Amino acid sequence: MTEAETPRVAADVAVFAFRDGAMNVLLVRRRYEPYESYWALPGGLLAPDETLEEAAERELREETNVTDTYMEQLATFSELDRDPRGRVISCCYLALVDGGRVRLRPGSDAREAAWRPLEPLLRDTEKRTVLAFDHDRILAYARQRLAYKLEYQNVAWSLLPETFTLSELRRVYEAGIGRAFEPNNFRRIALGWGVLAESGERPTGGRPAAIYRFADRRPLILAQSARYRRSA
Amino acid sequence: MTEAETPRVAADVAVFAFRDGAMNVLLVRRRYEPYESYWALPGGLLAPDETLEEAAERELREETNVTDTYMEQLATFSELDRDPRGRVISCCYLALVDGGRVRLRPGSDAREAAWRPLEPLLRDTEKRTVLAFDHDRILAYARQRLAYKLEYQNVAWSLLPETFTLSELRRVYEAGIGRAFEPNNFRRIALGWGVLAESGERPTGGRPAAIYRFADRRPLILAQSARYRRSA
Repeated sequence: MTEAETPRVAADVAVFAFRDGAMNVLLVRRRYEPYESYWALPGGLLAPDETLEEAAERELREETNVTDTYMEQLATFSELDRDPRGRVISCCYLALVDGGRVRLRPGSDAREAAWRPLEPLLRDTEKRTVLAFDHDRILAYARQRLAYKLEYQNVAWSLLPETFTLSELRRVYEAGIGRAFEPNNFRRIALGWGVLAESGERPTGGRPAAIYRFADRRPLILAQSARYRRSA
Repeated sequence: MTEAETPRVAADVAVFAFRDGAMNVLLVRRRYEPYESYWALPGGLLAPDETLEEAAERELREETNVTDTYMEQLATFSELDRDPRGRVISCCYLALVDGGRVRLRPGSDAREAAWRPLEPLLRDTEKRTVLAFDHDRILAYARQRLAYKLEYQNVAWSLLPETFTLSELRRVYEAGIGRAFEPNNFRRIALGWGVLAESGERPTGGRPAAIYRFADRRPLILAQSARYRRSA
């Protein structure tokens, strides 16, 4: 394989956060060609002295100022024509963060960094190319993984502040999975996971419901959730 | 990034099959340095005109003669020192196949191709380096995914012939997950999935139990299986 044929390797990140009642994805506006001024997932080329996960964390920090997320590998995309400059293999990560915690600051190759509501963006990408490269497709794939993880794995804590009400938790689920849950059913399911604990905080005027926290943040399988889906 | 610093990209495959009452993994014995004559997972460098999945399928076919497996991406490994020749990023695949169907034939970079019982191999890798490169670690990761997939997803059909008894199915589960199931419980769980159908074959002398087939091979979540684990 000659130098021209050796693919370059990149890491890209789909970061989700629950903000203003909706699931949002973090995008950056590209400063340079190709796709100059298009919005894209944060990411960039792997440096010689870092792993792919380190590259994903570094690019996210440099381009958006976001750090300390829940992060896991999503998939590696290797279609031949995904970058007009030549072959680039992209290892993509899924990251989840409490949207109230982060302060965006665009940097390096990014002209802007912004949260975008996920649902309208996905609807747009079904009609036309919206994001740079194959990021429309990667975003759709990441959203599937997000829904799957919420439904079957103990990961919702990463999208929430330390304490929350069951209604707030339910709204995260509705936004992440893309369908409504009947509140009493959801309450029964969520408490059946065995990972929530009452926080001990006393509800205040504007927050009359009981306040919970995740007592267990291990990546357990949430059997109750799976069972609910079956019978739904 | 100079040419020397540009990582090369490879695809490797962990292929599992149920054979002689045990879960087996497919290994090849390396013909060349590094790790000459060591056993390794089948795999090799990505060619310029193929995707990673195509590379995984091609290397598997060239080195072992195995084709037409269930295959999915497992993870991409990028530790800096995983190949003594220089940096190689490996995108690894999990493949499942009916062990009775394939005929091994080593080729290209492989001196031999053989099935190896998984459990004793994994125990060996805990004590010392057995496989080439970081393949001990990749194998352990692949085995975790195999167990997870069997427990939660409708994928066992890929490890079985067209028809089988519930005892045969249970033995695949026991070998893949690494623990025993009480036969009557397993029967209730497996029939509860809603994807098995009686084959219509009449049991013959040596096979007195009812014979089943997978009527549905879609990647459904097996809620019954998850519930069983909870209460176990």
